[in-house]
Amino acid sequence: MPVLRNNLSTEDGWQIIETSFDSDQLITTGSNFMIGNGYLGYRGTFAEWEADRFVACTVTDTWDVAPGSDWSELCNVPNGLFAQLIVDGESLSTSTGTTSEYSRELNMRYGLNRRSMIWQATHGRHVRFTEEKFASYANLHLVPMRITFEPLDDTEIVLRCGVDGRIWSLNGEHFTSYTPFQDGHALGIETRTQEWGIQVNVVTGLKLHGVPPVKTEVVTDERHNLWSHTFHLQAGQRITMEQIMVVCHNNAVVDPRTTALSDAATALDLGFDALFAAHQAEWDRIWAISDIQIAGNIEAQTLARFNLYQAIIATPAHGKLPIGARGLSCQVYQGAAFWDQETFNLPMYLYTRPEVARNLLEYRHDTLPGARQKARKHGYYGAFYAWTSGKTGEELFPDYFFTDVLTGRKVHNHFNSWQIHISPDIVYALWLYYEATSDWNFILDFGAEIAFEIAQFLVARVHYKMDKQRYEIIRVLGPDEYHENVDNNAYTNYMAQFALDKAAYIFQRMAAEHPQRLDTLLSQINLDRTVIATWVDIATRIYLPQPNADTLLIEQFDDFFTLENITPDALRQRLLDPGEYWGWPSGIAVEAQVLKQADLLQLFALLDERFSTEVMRANYDYYEPRTEHGSSLSPSVHATVASWVDYSDAAYRYFLEAATIDLYNASKKVMSGGSFLGGIHTAAAGAAWQMIVKGFAGFKLVAGVIHFRPALPKQWEQVTFKIAVRGNWLTVTLAADGLILTAAADNPGVLTVRVGTNESTVAPGTSINL
Amino acid sequence: MPVLRNNLSTEDGWQIIETSFDSDQLITTGSNFMIGNGYLGYRGTFAEWEADRFVACTVTDTWDVAPGSDWSELCNVPNGLFAQLIVDGESLSTSTGTTSEYSRELNMRYGLNRRSMIWQATHGRHVRFTEEKFASYANLHLVPMRITFEPLDDTEIVLRCGVDGRIWSLNGEHFTSYTPFQDGHALGIETRTQEWGIQVNVVTGLKLHGVPPVKTEVVTDERHNLWSHTFHLQAGQRITMEQIMVVCHNNAVVDPRTTALSDAATALDLGFDALFAAHQAEWDRIWAISDIQIAGNIEAQTLARFNLYQAIIATPAHGKLPIGARGLSCQVYQGAAFWDQETFNLPMYLYTRPEVARNLLEYRHDTLPGARQKARKHGYYGAFYAWTSGKTGEELFPDYFFTDVLTGRKVHNHFNSWQIHISPDIVYALWLYYEATSDWNFILDFGAEIAFEIAQFLVARVHYKMDKQRYEIIRVLGPDEYHENVDNNAYTNYMAQFALDKAAYIFQRMAAEHPQRLDTLLSQINLDRTVIATWVDIATRIYLPQPNADTLLIEQFDDFFTLENITPDALRQRLLDPGEYWGWPSGIAVEAQVLKQADLLQLFALLDERFSTEVMRANYDYYEPRTEHGSSLSPSVHATVASWVDYSDAAYRYFLEAATIDLYNASKKVMSGGSFLGGIHTAAAGAAWQMIVKGFAGFKLVAGVIHFRPALPKQWEQVTFKIAVRGNWLTVTLAADGLILTAAADNPGVLTVRVGTNESTVAPGTSINL
Repeated sequence: MPVLRNNLSTEDGWQIIETSFDSDQLITTGSNFMIGNGYLGYRGTFAEWEADRFVACTVTDTWDVAPGSDWSELCNVPNGLFAQLIVDGESLSTSTGTTSEYSRELNMRYGLNRRSMIWQATHGRHVRFTEEKFASYANLHLVPMRITFEPLDDTEIVLRCGVDGRIWSLNGEHFTSYTPFQDGHALGIETRTQEWGIQVNVVTGLKLHGVPPVKTEVVTDERHNLWSHTFHLQAGQRITMEQIMVVCHNNAVVDPRTTALSDAATALDLGFDALFAAHQAEWDRIWAISDIQIAGNIEAQTLARFNLYQAIIATPAHGKLPIGARGLSCQVYQGAAFWDQETFNLPMYLYTRPEVARNLLEYRHDTLPGARQKARKHGYYGAFYAWTSGKTGEELFPDYFFTDVLTGRKVHNHFNSWQIHISPDIVYALWLYYEATSDWNFILDFGAEIAFEIAQFLVARVHYKMDKQRYEIIRVLGPDEYHENVDNNAYTNYMAQFALDKAAYIFQRMAAEHPQRLDTLLSQINLDRTVIATWVDIATRIYLPQPNADTLLIEQFDDFFTLENITPDALRQRLLDPGEYWGWPSGIAVEAQVLKQADLLQLFALLDERFSTEVMRANYDYYEPRTEHGSSLSPSVHATVASWVDYSDAAYRYFLEAATIDLYNASKKVMSGGSFLGGIHTAAAGAAWQMIVKGFAGFKLVAGVIHFRPALPKQWEQVTFKIAVRGNWLTVTLAADGLILTAAADNPGVLTVRVGTNESTVAPGTSINL
Repeated sequence: MPVLRNNLSTEDGWQIIETSFDSDQLITTGSNFMIGNGYLGYRGTFAEWEADRFVACTVTDTWDVAPGSDWSELCNVPNGLFAQLIVDGESLSTSTGTTSEYSRELNMRYGLNRRSMIWQATHGRHVRFTEEKFASYANLHLVPMRITFEPLDDTEIVLRCGVDGRIWSLNGEHFTSYTPFQDGHALGIETRTQEWGIQVNVVTGLKLHGVPPVKTEVVTDERHNLWSHTFHLQAGQRITMEQIMVVCHNNAVVDPRTTALSDAATALDLGFDALFAAHQAEWDRIWAISDIQIAGNIEAQTLARFNLYQAIIATPAHGKLPIGARGLSCQVYQGAAFWDQETFNLPMYLYTRPEVARNLLEYRHDTLPGARQKARKHGYYGAFYAWTSGKTGEELFPDYFFTDVLTGRKVHNHFNSWQIHISPDIVYALWLYYEATSDWNFILDFGAEIAFEIAQFLVARVHYKMDKQRYEIIRVLGPDEYHENVDNNAYTNYMAQFALDKAAYIFQRMAAEHPQRLDTLLSQINLDRTVIATWVDIATRIYLPQPNADTLLIEQFDDFFTLENITPDALRQRLLDPGEYWGWPSGIAVEAQVLKQADLLQLFALLDERFSTEVMRANYDYYEPRTEHGSSLSPSVHATVASWVDYSDAAYRYFLEAATIDLYNASKKVMSGGSFLGGIHTAAAGAAWQMIVKGFAGFKLVAGVIHFRPALPKQWEQVTFKIAVRGNWLTVTLAADGLILTAAADNPGVLTVRVGTNESTVAPGTSINL
């Protein structure tokens, strides 16, 4: 079986399989083997585990602040898949007795988590044990589990299963009460959240197959609602239990208890196999358009699918909700959207499932009130989007995030107040959506308002310099968060210019084509037509740092090149404590040309058509050795840009680094200073698509023309993926000897494709080789 | 004899006398008892002491950087007043044997330092000993000393005296060589500085009176050039020696060795008494116009004179050189000018010796090239004056000044780059000079160029905000240095507005009255007449924070009121180390409403006519309890403003605090983290005049009209001082029952005086009672 790194392997690129259990990796494996459906995430833990082993079911749209905390985060709900076997008085556990034939598998094709083993208790009795679960895409409320156990010796087995309300929660107790309830074959716990009183009902339905229990009782205590079934079994007598967890809350359904009970009853009637079949059909639809097939490298194939899988299950495709920076893998980063959503996650949807991209952008429209409120708070008009955005778009990121490990004092960082590029990044994303879909109605209904309000925010945020006769943006953080309080950050200024330019375009086109709608919209947001002059003036005269004529270098921000010129490794030697934060206000990187991630490369990754390959290469050469990659966003951008500048070895090295951040847990700390920092890096997951499609294939869409710049890694034989542009599907196969493009037969139009200076067309149902 | 605090007393307010010696106070007493004449300062140390007891003669206009140092500082030159008595083999010393009838006195009337005592060696022999010295105002190169010694037992005494070249220097060895030389009755050491090769010659002339020595020899080693005279004396035989130190360097004279030898020969011929008489005549002239007489409080009288004395001897009145922040009391702060010069020292000269004020302002004109160079370095045009300004006006303040005591890392503060108010402060001072003197030619010759270049710097430094339609000043430090990186600091914005307004006035008046000179000047500095429009626009639309309608409070800078509201004492409890710096980037005051000094009060002290008494009082009430007084500049400003808002007790308390910073060494550390921080706080010294004349008498000059707002401290019977306004001298006596104003008989004009709403005139030779 092809071996991945560590204790992992795969069969055909659709599985992650571990055949040994490492109790030191609870946090990492709990995330990596997780299942989810965008409504909830259920960690890849074991049925008998409890809160101390980071069991969690994290549910979207349940933001709440616990008493004594400042953190608005998603709730981990009671665990309806708790199931414990007591074998002749000894609890089945990977930490006692002896485990053999152990296997844990994540089937990414169908989002199925499976564990099997033979467990021998200290008293010597054996049990063969299998556990399977999936988070249903057919009914998002459901997490069906099936456990099969079969003693290899005659024995008594007690099965305790149901809802475990002892919840692992990062920042306090979110629930005011735990009310048990029962209905037929279902046990449940009803809770309400502390801040908003969100009603959450978790129901477990249970069906047993095989030898009936000799005794059954319901055990209810303050935090549990469990069945206890006692079996007297002979060797080889197999019990199969189907335990269906249902999670409903009243931000999603009107009557969560009734819906949960009804869903549980229906699910029990259908049974695990039928539920799984319906779920498989959904995954078939997803993978049919989202899969990337890599030939000739099973590890890369597996990594690509792992990241696609994690990106997909992190996305609440069912509604207008954000993608959390750790998805639904845990509560870290509050289940909230950062700029990662638009910049790292959205692109794969733009060209595969544009309706999902549209949902995400409508979410940004829904949260305009929060963005307006934040702008007012900071003394601006327009919309200043939250750095950390939950349901309402109010700013969730605290002023004091890190603690200085040397002094124990809280540190005031300015991610929430100075990292303003989040707003123009959203305009960038909505423009890409429009380019990918031609969905002008989206612009009229949602995009224009977002773009106009962001333009107004930028008007309020820029400064005009009399001496240089230009607009500047003062006191920001770019993506390189080690340098706060900088001026004219190249990334931020270019993106702001882009946003103003697109706002002006939308304005002008509405003025020409929909003058009444324009005036109505302007009036609704208290503007008039005079604003366009300012937008155009700023877009025209804003300072965009240019490549130096000799070196081709673009300065990351004003005076960056005057900072100490030192490598990340040399700088690291100055740490007094390995846990020191490198950035503001007094970290070791503040006065150095050492980056958390490279703003210029990030800029190239978004606006590459503005820069020549020579400029990108020169800046890559300069910034790459100075980048510490303190952000999980960094390696994927390096992979993409390295590919564009023909640094194929570096590109592939960074691809592997980015694609394995979670699976191989190569560099990321899961605990820091007593804080849990685990979970899936969803931006890195979303970036896998970009590294392959934008990076290696060099795909981009410029004014309706599809561009490719093929740079197949020499480690691969070929790679195949699908993209949709304005309703036209194209299957792309990039092989060592060329590019094969196949247009779907039912495409509504002819696609124009450019590779280098060669322009071709692909008519519906035809293929071309380039 | 009236007793001051500690071990100090005075006879009639002209002396500081100590009658016990405290070896723990070497740094403080060396400064407090010092003598000087603006060309050199000689610390109030003992003749037999050497470098380890902080003996120093600090000489102006000798800026130099020692190898291995970043610090350009004034040189301490070889000590030409070294004199040691060896009494029967034992060196006379305050640290061995027994001292009785000890007295050290600073006579401030004539700048005479005197020590007397009877010293008994451990072997029992006694010597009566007296030492007197002064830094001549008649010939600035001279420091004559007279020592008289008289054994009270028959004894052999060896007198070793001459030039001691073992120099105490804060930041390295400034001299490349020590070449001894001799000429008649003079011994000398010739040196050259390391960086600039400044030739410094220190010569000692010697004349002995009384019993001739039995043996005389010259002892020369690497760093000494000394006489050794051996006397065989009987009890009661008195020897008087006159030792004249002469210091010349080739920044001041063409041939320092020849001049020094010639000065020494002349001085020896004249002798100590004649030299002192000529010196006294100069002090008589100074005190005739500069003294402040306080009746009814001998301590206050002494404090006033102590501060006037220290301010006067710190001032290089003989040339266009800066006043150092520690004057010539030591090398601390590099003998360089800060904004203190214009704001704290210059006012007393403006109204007593305006030619000295003019010298100081011409120094600022001479250093325009340095200020222009600094502006260019930071990307601006115009003149950005150095935070720490030596001879050339280049920036002497280092980027890294403090060391973080918790981490041992150097801290990057921004005094030199963000504390921009130094530039408008200079316009403020030159405008006050013009108001006080009507010296329009000074404006034409010097002031206009300074004001125009500063206006241009401000044009380059301000930012225009589109949304608020106003100019702002972003990222500054105000005088409250605990808060770096602030926007729209009230002090800075008001001062900038003042500077632009005055530049525009000067421009307009030159355009009307001297159009040719205007065009010539503009052409010289590469401007044309269009600049005036921008100056006026900024002066009109710059944001000047206004008093809140309800509270009357003016916010010190944007969002100051959102910082933590805590007292300095409560904040101090958070220190992990008492040596922690409170300010940028991570000190305890950064996020708190705790001030090093109060910017608003400082603003009121300069531009009080813009603010009502109610506004000043409300802001005093708010900011005073939040002020930590980490700067020696802070208490005097509080005294002045407190007096204006009728807080007489607070005013007097702050007066005492400010006036005793050095003499009682109340709060200032003389050593910190191994660094010498001693010396005279010359700004506080200069502020004594302001507290009395501006504060208690309420003097100000508004458009040629003299204003008084009398608030005599109840601790005083009356206070008398002189001021000159546009060549008219006025003697002012402020008593409990009123104000007596006497105009000099030879005044060229009639003075207009206003107290409250009453306006009076004072004709030459007349007095009025108000």
